[in-house]
Amino acid sequence: MLATVMYGPGDVRFENVDDPEIVEPTDAIIKLSATCICGSDLWPYRGLQPSQGPAHMGHEYCGVVVEVGRDVRTVRPGQFVVGSFCVSDNTCPHCKFGFQSSCVQREFMTGAQAPYARVPLADGTLVATAEMPPSDLIPHLLATSDVLGTGWYGADVANVRAGSTVVVVGDGAVGLMGVLAAKEMGADRIIAMSRHRARQELAKAFGATDIVAERGDTGIDRVNELTRGIGVDSVLECVGTQEAMTQAINCARPGGSIGYVGVPHGVTLDGQAIFFAQRRMMGGPAPVRRFLPDLMNRVLDGRLKPGRVFDLTLPLADVAEGYRAMDQRRSIKALLTV
Amino acid sequence: MLATVMYGPGDVRFENVDDPEIVEPTDAIIKLSATCICGSDLWPYRGLQPSQGPAHMGHEYCGVVVEVGRDVRTVRPGQFVVGSFCVSDNTCPHCKFGFQSSCVQREFMTGAQAPYARVPLADGTLVATAEMPPSDLIPHLLATSDVLGTGWYGADVANVRAGSTVVVVGDGAVGLMGVLAAKEMGADRIIAMSRHRARQELAKAFGATDIVAERGDTGIDRVNELTRGIGVDSVLECVGTQEAMTQAINCARPGGSIGYVGVPHGVTLDGQAIFFAQRRMMGGPAPVRRFLPDLMNRVLDGRLKPGRVFDLTLPLADVAEGYRAMDQRRSIKALLTV
Repeated sequence: MLATVMYGPGDVRFENVDDPEIVEPTDAIIKLSATCICGSDLWPYRGLQPSQGPAHMGHEYCGVVVEVGRDVRTVRPGQFVVGSFCVSDNTCPHCKFGFQSSCVQREFMTGAQAPYARVPLADGTLVATAEMPPSDLIPHLLATSDVLGTGWYGADVANVRAGSTVVVVGDGAVGLMGVLAAKEMGADRIIAMSRHRARQELAKAFGATDIVAERGDTGIDRVNELTRGIGVDSVLECVGTQEAMTQAINCARPGGSIGYVGVPHGVTLDGQAIFFAQRRMMGGPAPVRRFLPDLMNRVLDGRLKPGRVFDLTLPLADVAEGYRAMDQRRSIKALLTV
Repeated sequence: MLATVMYGPGDVRFENVDDPEIVEPTDAIIKLSATCICGSDLWPYRGLQPSQGPAHMGHEYCGVVVEVGRDVRTVRPGQFVVGSFCVSDNTCPHCKFGFQSSCVQREFMTGAQAPYARVPLADGTLVATAEMPPSDLIPHLLATSDVLGTGWYGADVANVRAGSTVVVVGDGAVGLMGVLAAKEMGADRIIAMSRHRARQELAKAFGATDIVAERGDTGIDRVNELTRGIGVDSVLECVGTQEAMTQAINCARPGGSIGYVGVPHGVTLDGQAIFFAQRRMMGGPAPVRRFLPDLMNRVLDGRLKPGRVFDLTLPLADVAEGYRAMDQRRSIKALLTV
């Protein structure tokens, strides 16, 4: 089949690769209904994260099961499924504790920017719908696989609840999903920190009540003005840089919580500073599997439309253009049709 | 009056100082029923924390109100009161959010290793009992002022609840109070990390189910053995060194929580490491005022006996010997009778 391979920074090719096969008896093979490019794919694309040789890209996926290994019990060929970017057995102590992204058998999904993909640990990873969903819901269901699940987790660990005041640092797809999650959880005030007009508009459409375009100390001052010097209950840090983390910590009130879901690159925290700041901090790769059945239901009910985050749709064959568009910030997130 | 003044590392004197007076109309003057030396007093005593000239020591206190400023409404002369080591107005947004230790008017109490002390912001800081408590309860009530309140906060922010598995790092008074708090909150298993026989025994008396005498990697391995490789739900970090923090992080399970109440000295956290470790972290000076009415009631009911942590009782005049005994680990915590 033709699929996406990254050879190095800036070098994404759509080329012939082996068809995926059942390797372990717990695997499933799915035919992708759609796939997409993640903001985290840009770290190696930009050379900001070391990569070892050609990599089969893509970890967000939904589609139809075409084959399962002999030990797979809960999904069968013909079913429509969504899975998390972290595969998990969903039975180990960490999974049972709700942290499937730290499953003892955890693997990070790869190779989903392709017509077909192998999903390890299918029973613990995939969630099937009762019926084949209508095609207009596919982008929304695809978004639950990572980007919505990650924004949701960020809001969850930032303790967002009815009436909360919230800051979202970062206006990438995850940040925008964080806005949507905070809104759905009943937040009263949602301040999106965003410098880009199109993203500001989308943030507002997802529920942001205020936009702060400034960054760094000026941005922090602006949030303080908006909150009469108190700071907010909850901050979602959706970038992963030191500047973004500092901004997150300083926008929160004492006793406030920071959910950080941008993979930290070069971030260091001073123990005494965060001690006296008195902020609750929790991050990590999102245990999307925990939230997936609920999020899929909210999409199937028409309650959530996270797929609005896709502002570019390309055929899979044009995946390299999708990377370029996202790298150059011409696109927030590119959907690839299969 | 004669009171405690620290002139520099190792130099604690009991000498004549001015009697405390009402300075602000919101002040109260109390006659101490008893006072004590805190583990945190040892940081400057050991020269591990810079100090500027002579300091009036002591921030843990209970006693009888002798005078109040003209704006004080909720306490009156003759009442027995306990207050937090952080004084607070208990009306600002941070106080109302339960973080009185970050009150906009926060001051850290000083000068309580003395017969009399001035308590600023008396209305927001002091909690009065309905009646004069019997003298045998004084040590237990004194302990609520900081050390129990701090251990309790550590357990609270570490999400200890019924059935939790808990590690307590540090066998100082706060660590021992953390054991007591975790027990009172219904923890199922409480692993105290302690190398000292007397402290191990007290930890067991307070509810520890297991003792781990090893530190560092060996200690972490031992906790992992005890928890079948899973790690614990909650860790209370009650030391404040890098080694203790590393131990705390590595004893917790993914998704577990670390409450850190040892003031960090030279502690740095790597953002990416704690991201992938997926631990919830919350610390800071304890908002003891939030817990004080409840903790005082538990003491008055005879349910909690935190004063057992005092293993040395000296007259206030011998305060310098109290510092020496604690510095040399001959005493866990010294009570000073007034």
